[in-house]
Amino acid sequence: MDTALSGISAPGRLAAEDEDIGAEELALAARNHGLPLEALRYGVTPAGLHYVLVHYDIPAADPGTWRLTVGGRVDRPLSLDLAALRALPAVTRRVTMECAGNGRARLLPRPVSQPWLVEGVGTADWTGVPLRTVLAEAGVRAEAVEAVFTGADHGVERGVEQDYARSLPVAVAAGTEPEVLLAYAMNGGPLPPQHGFPLRLVVPGWYGMAHVKWLRDITLSDVPFEGFQQALAYRYRRDPEDPGEPVTLIAPRALMVPPGFPDFMSRLRVVRAGPVPLEGRAWSGHGPVTRVELSCDGGRTWTDAAVEPGARDGRSSRAWQAWHGVWRAAPGRYVLMARATDATGRTQPLGQAWNRGGFGNNAVQRVPVLCRR
Amino acid sequence: MDTALSGISAPGRLAAEDEDIGAEELALAARNHGLPLEALRYGVTPAGLHYVLVHYDIPAADPGTWRLTVGGRVDRPLSLDLAALRALPAVTRRVTMECAGNGRARLLPRPVSQPWLVEGVGTADWTGVPLRTVLAEAGVRAEAVEAVFTGADHGVERGVEQDYARSLPVAVAAGTEPEVLLAYAMNGGPLPPQHGFPLRLVVPGWYGMAHVKWLRDITLSDVPFEGFQQALAYRYRRDPEDPGEPVTLIAPRALMVPPGFPDFMSRLRVVRAGPVPLEGRAWSGHGPVTRVELSCDGGRTWTDAAVEPGARDGRSSRAWQAWHGVWRAAPGRYVLMARATDATGRTQPLGQAWNRGGFGNNAVQRVPVLCRR
Repeated sequence: MDTALSGISAPGRLAAEDEDIGAEELALAARNHGLPLEALRYGVTPAGLHYVLVHYDIPAADPGTWRLTVGGRVDRPLSLDLAALRALPAVTRRVTMECAGNGRARLLPRPVSQPWLVEGVGTADWTGVPLRTVLAEAGVRAEAVEAVFTGADHGVERGVEQDYARSLPVAVAAGTEPEVLLAYAMNGGPLPPQHGFPLRLVVPGWYGMAHVKWLRDITLSDVPFEGFQQALAYRYRRDPEDPGEPVTLIAPRALMVPPGFPDFMSRLRVVRAGPVPLEGRAWSGHGPVTRVELSCDGGRTWTDAAVEPGARDGRSSRAWQAWHGVWRAAPGRYVLMARATDATGRTQPLGQAWNRGGFGNNAVQRVPVLCRR
Repeated sequence: MDTALSGISAPGRLAAEDEDIGAEELALAARNHGLPLEALRYGVTPAGLHYVLVHYDIPAADPGTWRLTVGGRVDRPLSLDLAALRALPAVTRRVTMECAGNGRARLLPRPVSQPWLVEGVGTADWTGVPLRTVLAEAGVRAEAVEAVFTGADHGVERGVEQDYARSLPVAVAAGTEPEVLLAYAMNGGPLPPQHGFPLRLVVPGWYGMAHVKWLRDITLSDVPFEGFQQALAYRYRRDPEDPGEPVTLIAPRALMVPPGFPDFMSRLRVVRAGPVPLEGRAWSGHGPVTRVELSCDGGRTWTDAAVEPGARDGRSSRAWQAWHGVWRAAPGRYVLMARATDATGRTQPLGQAWNRGGFGNNAVQRVPVLCRR
C-alpha cells in the first residue's frame, strides 16, 4: 500500500496556457482571502478584512501553556510565557503587510499556488516587544549568523513535512531599521487565530512570508538556514534549477478604491459622468512612496495624484500612504491605473516581471470602468 | 457610444462541462471568504473567520448620521438612530448562518457565481432589538403582507441596478419562532464593516440572503415584493423560465474538522495510524440535529457520532451542535464523510440536488485522508 507523501503532495508547476483556476487553487482562495479593495478607505484595516495566508492549518494554541523558546548560539537559553513577554517594554508599529505572491494569478504562465489577483495586503497596528530586547536577554554569541523562527503550523509542501520556519540574518533580527517585533496584539486586541495567536513575528517592510505566525521557537544558528521556506520556496527564480534570489522587501505598489459601484459578477465599475474622486493607498518596503501617477486612458497618459507624505516617526514609517485625485469622466469605457514610485526610484512595471514562484508581481492595477450619463 | 449596463452585466449562466473556475469567479472568491474548516473547533467563530458574502461593495456607513426608517403600511412611520435602537430592550442570540450558495462549486454543471465549496458558514452571538418590538412601535396595518428590508449596498446584477433588498412575510418578521433581530453587535462588539455595520437583519435558521446587511429601511407592503433578490435570484429552479420556489430555511449539514495535517496545495490530509479523534459541527434551519453519521470508507458503511443535544433555550437553539467520534485508522487512503439528520427527518444526500442558481447543495462533505504508520 502506497502511503508516501508524494502521493498527496506534488511538485510546483505552471498552469497550461489555457488552464483556468483549478479545484486546488479554488480551495486555497476559499480559505485565504484578500482585502476587499473598497476597504483601502481605512487607514488601519478592520478585523477580518486584512489579507490572510495560512500555509497549513490555523493551530489551536493554548495561551496558558504556550512558551517561546530561544536557543542555539546564545549565552542564556530562554523559555518565555506570555506574561514574561508582556512584562517587557512594548512598542506599537503601524505596518503594511503584503503577501509575496500578490499578483500571482495575473502572471502568464500562472504558477499554480494561492491565486492572488492584487488584494493580498492589509495594514494593522502591531504591539509587542522588539526582538532585539529578547535577543539581548538571551545573549547572541559572536558566531551566530542567522536567527531561525519556527511556528506551530505543521504540514506538507511539495513532499516535505515541516513546521513553517524562516530565518533572518542576525543583523536584521537585532536591527532597528526596521525594528523587528514579537507581536502579541493587533489593532489593540489579542492576535486573531488566523494572524498568529498568541505570538507572531513582524518584520516591517518585508513580504508576509517573513512574519512567522504562531511563533514558538527562535534558534540562533552559525550556518545559513536551509529549510524549505527559505532555500526552496520564496525565491525569485526563472526555473526550478535556478538557485534564485531570496524574496525580502516589498516592491512598490499603488492600489485604487474602485470608484462608483460594481456589477456583482464581473466586478466591473459604473460611475456617473462628471468629476469622480479617485483615492487609494501606496506603499513600498524600500522607502517612502514619493509619487503616485494616475492614468484614465489605459496607460497612454499619466497625471500626478496628491500623495500623503511618508511618516518620519518610527511608529508609522512602514505603513501605506493615502493618495487622491479627480477624474473628469465623460460617458464611455475606460481602464484606470495607478502607479507608485518610491524614494529609491523603484516603480511599478506596466507588464509582468515573471518568475517561477509568482512572487513580487507589482504590475500596475487595471480598473475597468463604465461611465454613464 | 454604448454605455448600457448590459455591456458589463451578463445574464446568469452555467459553466461548460470542462470549464474550470474563471477570472470572475476567482475575483469573487478573493473578496468573499469561507470558514477555514479547522475553525469548526470554535463554538463561536472568531472575528474574521466567519464566512462573508458581499454582493456589491461594503458601504462606508457614518454611524453619526445613519438612520433606520420604517414606513409604508404603518400607523407611525419611524426614523431611528443607533442611540434610539440601543435604548430598546436587547437580546443576544447564537446563530449559525450559511450562504445559500454553499456547495455551488461542487455542482455539475456549475452555476457561475460565488464558487463556494463547503465553507460558507459561521456562528456568532448577535445582539440587537427584536424586530417585532420596532414593528409594534410603528404599528403594522392590517393590510400589510410583507416587510421589505433595504440595505445601503448598491450595485448591478444581471443588468439590474439596485440596492440589495429582500422581504419577509409579516408573520415571519413579527414572529417569535424564530425571533428576527435588528442586530447592532456581533460577538460583543460593533458589527464589523463586512457584516453590516451599523445594523443588519438576523433571521435565525434562514440562509444568509435573508439577513440584510447595512439595513437602512423597512417598508411594510400590501403586495408581495417582486425585487430582484426575491423574485429572480434566490429561488430553487431547474431553468431560467421556471418561477421556482423561494430559498428560505437552511438544509441540514455536518462538517468535519479535517483530521491530521494538510498538504499546502492539495489540502489532502495526513494522519498517523491509530485512534484518530474526529469532530465537527452540524446544523439545520428546520430543527435540531438529532443524528450525525460517519463513514470512513467513502460511504459504504456508517457509524453514529456522539451529538451535542440541541439547545432548548431561545438563546442558542439556532446554533450548530458539536459532534465527535473516533476513527481507528490503519495505513492506506480513505475518504471520510459526515452526514446530519434533523428532527424533521431531513438528511443530507450523497449526490447533488442540482438547481440553476446553485442553492442549498448540502451533499455530504468528502475529506480525503492518507494514513501513514
